[in-house]
Amino acid sequence: MITVLCGGVGGVKLVAGLAAVLPDPSLLSVVVNTADDCVVWGLHVSPDVDTVLYTLAQCASHERGWGIEGDTWSALEMLGRYGLPTWFRIGDRDLGTHVARTMWLREGRRLTDIVQALGRSLGVPSRVLPMCDERVETIVRVPSGRIPFQEYFVARRASDRVLGVEFVGMDRAHVTPEVADAVCRSALIVVAPSNPVVSIGPILAVPGMRQALAAARAVRLAVTPLVAGRAIKGPTAEMLRGIGVPAEPAAVAGMYGDFLDVFVLDVQDRADAAAVAAAGRSGRPVTVACVDTVMDDDGARCRLARDVIRIAAASGAGVPVPLA
Amino acid sequence: MITVLCGGVGGVKLVAGLAAVLPDPSLLSVVVNTADDCVVWGLHVSPDVDTVLYTLAQCASHERGWGIEGDTWSALEMLGRYGLPTWFRIGDRDLGTHVARTMWLREGRRLTDIVQALGRSLGVPSRVLPMCDERVETIVRVPSGRIPFQEYFVARRASDRVLGVEFVGMDRAHVTPEVADAVCRSALIVVAPSNPVVSIGPILAVPGMRQALAAARAVRLAVTPLVAGRAIKGPTAEMLRGIGVPAEPAAVAGMYGDFLDVFVLDVQDRADAAAVAAAGRSGRPVTVACVDTVMDDDGARCRLARDVIRIAAASGAGVPVPLA
Repeated sequence: MITVLCGGVGGVKLVAGLAAVLPDPSLLSVVVNTADDCVVWGLHVSPDVDTVLYTLAQCASHERGWGIEGDTWSALEMLGRYGLPTWFRIGDRDLGTHVARTMWLREGRRLTDIVQALGRSLGVPSRVLPMCDERVETIVRVPSGRIPFQEYFVARRASDRVLGVEFVGMDRAHVTPEVADAVCRSALIVVAPSNPVVSIGPILAVPGMRQALAAARAVRLAVTPLVAGRAIKGPTAEMLRGIGVPAEPAAVAGMYGDFLDVFVLDVQDRADAAAVAAAGRSGRPVTVACVDTVMDDDGARCRLARDVIRIAAASGAGVPVPLA
Repeated sequence: MITVLCGGVGGVKLVAGLAAVLPDPSLLSVVVNTADDCVVWGLHVSPDVDTVLYTLAQCASHERGWGIEGDTWSALEMLGRYGLPTWFRIGDRDLGTHVARTMWLREGRRLTDIVQALGRSLGVPSRVLPMCDERVETIVRVPSGRIPFQEYFVARRASDRVLGVEFVGMDRAHVTPEVADAVCRSALIVVAPSNPVVSIGPILAVPGMRQALAAARAVRLAVTPLVAGRAIKGPTAEMLRGIGVPAEPAAVAGMYGDFLDVFVLDVQDRADAAAVAAAGRSGRPVTVACVDTVMDDDGARCRLARDVIRIAAASGAGVPVPLA
């Protein structure tokens, strides 16, 4: 069993690759950030969860990276006519997902159960697990004040200088039994190349999560979200600097240093290998591997997925990974 | 000023005719049944209000009689995929209306204010007024039990024998200030040819409504919902019999007998004129007029609207109607 921790558009590419190369995609569990969930038009939207669901259901929009391929925009147009904000663009099929989720949440169902139901209906063969069932909200501190993540990221196009990040409500969050089970039973845990601050950060901040990862028998491997000092997509470098962390692979490895066995560095950054290897906390060694981590197309996703499995199996860390 | 009391698809044709023939459609207020409002997928749907809004905004589907012309069905398809019931068919644009209304209701806004806002956004020149702001629910008693109106009407296609009708929550409903104002200030109040049991019935059952109509200075005129013993559309005859009322124009006139001045009978039923004239309560005379009440096309809607105004002006009841 493999468990991946991931956010949305960036990390999901590796998830798609793993689902494609595993002999049985039901062996894959994906623990997904929900701290950038938001309420749009009174509906509960889980952008990262839905990106993972739609990608694994093979109905995600390739072109946009979010939402559903070939979706229509009738409801959005109507809601705009009613004077409601439409900067968070929700297609009609996508809206169906949010309507169903919101209804079920109001009925008192757990987000974890709801996401399982959505996944089954969409034909997703893997387990998609929200990081927790409680409502957590990422707030970004910028010079003009504190703003919700989606406002920073979508409405303001990540153009503000980031001064810090808070996860409101995290003190009440819990690792779900499903996430605990996946972490405990996996032979390999992969931290996807998602934003370490606002995608992986919240998952690791769920009380008990870091301890569960540190105690896991799995090989714990992270794939760098930075290539040549920049993120392929999104404001990863800016957000790292915003929380006072250098935008360098070794610094990212350090953020995972209490549980990490292996760090996959991009070949372009091989000069950073020694620094990354020293990033483990309390003298814990980190094995470093260098491969091409850029996932430009489906082939590259599968190639990186195979590399990750191969590297984990060869690392000698954790239990043997019988997956390649 | 003219006020019309109406339900959905049937009565709205006369509303459309009146809006078309009045020199200024802002002189028209429409008090609409909300007792068949329902919750679909967790969203508050007001079928009759929306039919009136869409019709007056000239975006209603001519073919279906409900919903929006040219709407798409993506969200419905998705919600069906999630296993949710789709017998209540909501198009994507229409869904936008329900999402907005539900959000605003949850924010604590009055339904009356919400419908005004929707109407303004849609460019509706007349005032569309929900019969009340409280939630009232029409329950139909059928041999198998008590079922919500939309289940009787849409899901089960009005195929059950009707044993009775209840308006749950009506004891807590109030005539809104806007409805009271429209009733008080109108020169003509028209009861549309809507179902007297489940469309006009709930409006009249709002505590205080019958008294307000009885006290109004307006000419109070009803257009028959029955032609040659049958309703043009819908289960009016069956529902009348279900509550123990003969499916005859005189019986319908009798249901409005405490406030009615004029009853417009279809020419096909002119033999019923004497019975209708005697239907007023406490010796109150009812003036009877016979015209063609069948509204097959836009021309017929306007013709009946002009006839109604002419008949009201000629009736000698109420204050003079300066509208024709």
